[in-house]
Order: sequence, then structure tokens, then C-alpha cells
Amino acid sequence: MEFSKNMSYLGVGVSPGNVPVYHGTNLKVIDRRVRVAELVLRCLICGLSVLAAVLVGTDTQIKEIFTIQKKARFTDMKALVFLVAANGITAAYSLVQGVRCVVGMVRGSVLFSKPLALAIFSGDQALAYLNVAAVGAAAQSAAFAKLGQTKLQWMVICNMYGKFCNQIGEGIAVSLLLSICMVGLSCISAFGLFRLYGSNKAKNNSGW
Amino acid sequence: MEFSKNMSYLGVGVSPGNVPVYHGTNLKVIDRRVRVAELVLRCLICGLSVLAAVLVGTDTQIKEIFTIQKKARFTDMKALVFLVAANGITAAYSLVQGVRCVVGMVRGSVLFSKPLALAIFSGDQALAYLNVAAVGAAAQSAAFAKLGQTKLQWMVICNMYGKFCNQIGEGIAVSLLLSICMVGLSCISAFGLFRLYGSNKAKNNSGW
Repeated sequence: MEFSKNMSYLGVGVSPGNVPVYHGTNLKVIDRRVRVAELVLRCLICGLSVLAAVLVGTDTQIKEIFTIQKKARFTDMKALVFLVAANGITAAYSLVQGVRCVVGMVRGSVLFSKPLALAIFSGDQALAYLNVAAVGAAAQSAAFAKLGQTKLQWMVICNMYGKFCNQIGEGIAVSLLLSICMVGLSCISAFGLFRLYGSNKAKNNSGW
Repeated sequence: MEFSKNMSYLGVGVSPGNVPVYHGTNLKVIDRRVRVAELVLRCLICGLSVLAAVLVGTDTQIKEIFTIQKKARFTDMKALVFLVAANGITAAYSLVQGVRCVVGMVRGSVLFSKPLALAIFSGDQALAYLNVAAVGAAAQSAAFAKLGQTKLQWMVICNMYGKFCNQIGEGIAVSLLLSICMVGLSCISAFGLFRLYGSNKAKNNSGW
């Protein structure tokens, strides 16, 4: 373990720009690509979650019915509040993780700490499922608002608040895209965690 | 690669009951536990998904309002149809995967094929997210049915169909439990896939 750890630190730390010529070359290239993909995804997710939160959170429409003013806001529907909360948490989390990625890349260190990899993996998994659940609930609410439920006499409300509904729809679409990115990211962090275990395995099997 | 592969086949195949005395011992124990956990989870998921599908799918209640008979069924709500479909797919998938687990354990072979591990990982991930999304949507529908949405004049329907609503609630609770198991399983299959990459890594780094 110590041996391969030192090899990796050496390879990345001493010549961060070049591809060192030893049998780990292939791995270094893969490792670099994975880290760049992780950073790009984290930035993308941060941007998308802010965009989705703003789209849904700032959406209002005022409708006058006779002399009564009715105002539609995202807080009228619990699912949208849940969606905005999920987006906010994702944005803050992605920002912190993005900074960690950049620091890691600048310092040229390779992630070999199992507890840290486990924490990142757990966080990514939790947020991926949170986002998928939030999108599921919000999409269901939107479907009721757009299509109604005649059998239950729940009326279509998007006829009344057309502009409001469209913007919410855009917010949900962005959140869906965000969820897909988050799922991809959770695969990358799973790779980062579990290859550490594979490393032990090969060592044990080869009888060191 | 071939070397460690053969070691593993030997260790598990020749003495399936004993713990072989070499440096891979620790790994063998972990590997065995992971496989047993996988099989138990797959059986549990299969059972839970059948239970949830039956609870939701067979739920009906007839209400007489004056002389008109109204029948509540799960098909009245799209989210419940989605939930039953997700449960059905999960049950069928878990059955097939459970058989694969049992065959693998009986034959004593260790999963070393990357394409197969990738297929299992992808399937588990897809079903985990499918189930989480289905539970999210169904829970949202149930919340509307139970609590109504006074601002939108969507009325509470669980006052009318109390018994029906309770059984749907049980079905959603079982589905939630099923989703949690499915998430755990997807972590196990991620472990199964990505440790194969770690294995290569250690080999490369040690300079074979």
C-alpha cells in the first residue's frame, strides 16, 4: 500500500504536466480525465442548481378575479419548496466540493484516504437521490397543475397562471438535467472510493 | 490479472467452506460477506416489490353517493400506476439477479468480467433511481389526496375513501423501504464493478 501510494504521489507531484514513463501511465491518464470530468460536472451542477432555484424561487404571477387579487408563488406548493431547498443544498455542496477538487488538482495530490472518499461518495449519493426524489415530486405536482385530475375534481390551474406554470416547467427541466449530472457524478465518486478496495485486493491476492 | 484470478477461483472453488490460509484470507471473508449481503438484499427487494405492487394494485373501494356508485382504483392516479410498474420491473429484475447470485455462489466463481459487472451496476443504479422517483411522485400524490391543497381548491379525497387511502399509504411505505434496500444494493454493485479497476491500478503501479 505504502509503495503504490508513494509511486502515485511521485508521479503526479514531481511532473504534473508530463506523462511519466512507467507502467502506471495508462492509469495516470485515466485518473487525470476522471478528475477533470469531476470538476467540470461539479461546476455544471453548481450553475444548474442556482439557475433552477432562481427560476422556481422568483416565479410569481398576479391574477385579478373580479376585484380580488390572487398571487401565485412557489410556496403555494410543497413540492416546489422541496425542489428549491434541494437545489440550494446542491449548489452549496457543489461549491465546497468544487473548491476541494481545484485544491486537489493544484496540489497534485491523489485521493487515497478511505474515510474522505467514503464521505464524498456518501454526500454525492445522498444528493443524487434527493434531487431525483425532488424532481419526481415536482413533476407530479406540475402534471396535476397542467392536466388536472377530473375524476377527483382537481381543476387545471395552469389555464389561469400560464406564465407562472411555464417558468416552473423550465425550472423542473433544469432540475432534471441537474439530477442526471448528479447521477453521473455519484458514479465517478463511487469509482473513486471502491477502486481503493480493489487495490488492497490485488495486493492480498498476489501474496505480499 | 490471470494470476490473481486463478488464486481466487482456487480459494473459493476448492474449499468453499473453509477459510484458506494465505494473505488473501481477509479479502475472501469480505468477498463472501458482500455476496451473502447481495443475495439477501435481492431476495428482500423481490419480496418487498411484490408486496408493494399487490398492496397498491389490488386496492379498491366503492362509495355510494346518493344512487351513484363511485369506485376508487389505483389507475385513477398516474403516480400509482408508475409506482406499480416500477415495483413490477424491480420484482422481475431482482428474481433474475437473485438466480444469477445463487448460480454464482454454487459454482464458486468470482465476478471478474468487467462488462457483466458494468451491466449489473447499470441495472441496479437505474432501478434504484426509478424507485426513488416513483416513491417521490407517489408520496406527493398521496399528500395531495390526504391534505388537499386549499389554495388551489383541490379537495381532500381521503375523507371519502379512508380504507383505500390507508392501504395506498402502506404500499408507499413498503416502496420506500424497498427503495432504501435498492440504494444499498446499488452501492454493493458499485463496489463489485470499481474494485476491478482498482485491481488494475495496483498492478500497474507496482510495475509488473
